Amino acid sequence: MKFEVTILGSRAAKPDVKHYQTAHALNVHEQFYLIDCGEAVQTQLMRYGLHPMRINHVFVSHLHGDHFYGLFPMISTMGLMGRKTPLHVYGPHPLQEIVDMHFRYFDAQLGYEVICHEVDHTQHLPVYENKVMEVWSIPLRHRVPCTGYHFREKTPGLNLRPAALQRYELSIQQMVAAKRGEDITLEDGTTIPNAELTYTPYAARSYAYLSDTTYSAKAAHLVRGVDLMYHEATYADADRKRARQTGHSTTLQAAKAALEAEAGQLIIGHFSGRYDENTEALRAEAATLFANTIAATEGLRVEIPIRKNQP
Amino acid sequence: MKFEVTILGSRAAKPDVKHYQTAHALNVHEQFYLIDCGEAVQTQLMRYGLHPMRINHVFVSHLHGDHFYGLFPMISTMGLMGRKTPLHVYGPHPLQEIVDMHFRYFDAQLGYEVICHEVDHTQHLPVYENKVMEVWSIPLRHRVPCTGYHFREKTPGLNLRPAALQRYELSIQQMVAAKRGEDITLEDGTTIPNAELTYTPYAARSYAYLSDTTYSAKAAHLVRGVDLMYHEATYADADRKRARQTGHSTTLQAAKAALEAEAGQLIIGHFSGRYDENTEALRAEAATLFANTIAATEGLRVEIPIRKNQP
Repeated sequence: MKFEVTILGSRAAKPDVKHYQTAHALNVHEQFYLIDCGEAVQTQLMRYGLHPMRINHVFVSHLHGDHFYGLFPMISTMGLMGRKTPLHVYGPHPLQEIVDMHFRYFDAQLGYEVICHEVDHTQHLPVYENKVMEVWSIPLRHRVPCTGYHFREKTPGLNLRPAALQRYELSIQQMVAAKRGEDITLEDGTTIPNAELTYTPYAARSYAYLSDTTYSAKAAHLVRGVDLMYHEATYADADRKRARQTGHSTTLQAAKAALEAEAGQLIIGHFSGRYDENTEALRAEAATLFANTIAATEGLRVEIPIRKNQP
Repeated sequence: MKFEVTILGSRAAKPDVKHYQTAHALNVHEQFYLIDCGEAVQTQLMRYGLHPMRINHVFVSHLHGDHFYGLFPMISTMGLMGRKTPLHVYGPHPLQEIVDMHFRYFDAQLGYEVICHEVDHTQHLPVYENKVMEVWSIPLRHRVPCTGYHFREKTPGLNLRPAALQRYELSIQQMVAAKRGEDITLEDGTTIPNAELTYTPYAARSYAYLSDTTYSAKAAHLVRGVDLMYHEATYADADRKRARQTGHSTTLQAAKAALEAEAGQLIIGHFSGRYDENTEALRAEAATLFANTIAATEGLRVEIPIRKNQP
């Protein structure tokens, strides 16, 4: 039951031979989600062993090309690969209009449906949910409508404690009721509190994707307690004026957001090309404020390990 | 005075980690031209030492995504790099509409102009000309409007023969007239034929780009005598039915076009992913009909050497 992020692109708008525009793949229990899709995201998926056909949901933060250019080529390739399953794409308005426009000129005979879900970038709302996870929008502050995403594993169902099963002779109905969270009253009238009978097998995990944005205390607050936060840090602290002008964050602002959110770990990325390979200096700068910081790099995998509880 | 093609992408529509969608760069006397622009063409240019900013003219054969997806990301990057020089893009209708539509959503504040030149894909006409080269459209036969391009170096100006200069005492006016191609009449009334006074320093070279297309005798005829022909060969001969259905050519059809055109050399490419790395077999098949065939591969450079004439 993995919960793992793979960084497909660590750079801001200008890619180069080694560095790609922003894209992350998230594996939650072997279901794969794509978050932003810079140019050549389809080959980046392949490079890191993730088959594009395993992607059913794409979460786009905003409609700047460097977070978006790889979507349509990937859609085409999926068609050529014979895809039949719908692909769901989430992102701010006018996502639907741009996708419609694309189909007016390209991929007119795609063998599957692309379903757009426009996300209100001003609201903190659930945008997607399945059995094991839900995704919430996080309003961000950028030059254009932009939303972060908070991927929250659901708290797993209760397990019965083996010790309690040995101690009490429960009927099947009582076991089912206990798993639903109910206290159980035995034949002799004793009531056993649910906590004695059951436990949560592992703690739910979460990943927050916050890019592109200036520092936002509100966004940090909305993801409080997150296990792993990705926050853009396009610039070093020395370039904070440029960060402000362009609607981006610095290393220290990303670290401040992680502190504010009481995050477990911080990944910084979306680095400006001006720092080239010197992202360790950016990481170190952020780490002065938030120690558990790592720098995004193509192919980096960060797993949030499962924290099992004692039965 | 180079005349050299660099293959940036050898594959048909489905790229993978090593193989890119179609794009060629042409160096004519250190001016660089881009022909088609599959996804990630900007990084492919960088990979092979060609700075995207050196591209001022892009020739697009047709508006299928695999020949086109890399254009807009490259346009964006050029803007971020501070480009001021206009970029000229050639291609069939509705090129202008698609470019306009792009700017409606992206790159609204680009610092330079993108000038579209729609090419009539049914006509054989000059579409671009400068001091050293002209480019002609070559009607092709594909599922959508598609044009090839014939890049023709201009015949260089006449040089004076050193031996003739020693033999005759020509005035500056007479030298200029001889370089214009005129015969010269000396003071004693003798007329010296121009050929005795001048020579063409080197033979003009040419490159024909024919993709995507089924076999077209007409296209081959239009580029007769071409030094280097690129012809798509999406399929092996065994898959010729599939080639016909999809508007593509086989290895043998590409070779037949090269024979028909009396080409000096043939590059085949736009290979279907089904052949994976086995392009040598495709090359060998084409070579049974046209011996001087090479298979496109990423980074392949083919120079047409200058053929100097004796003074």
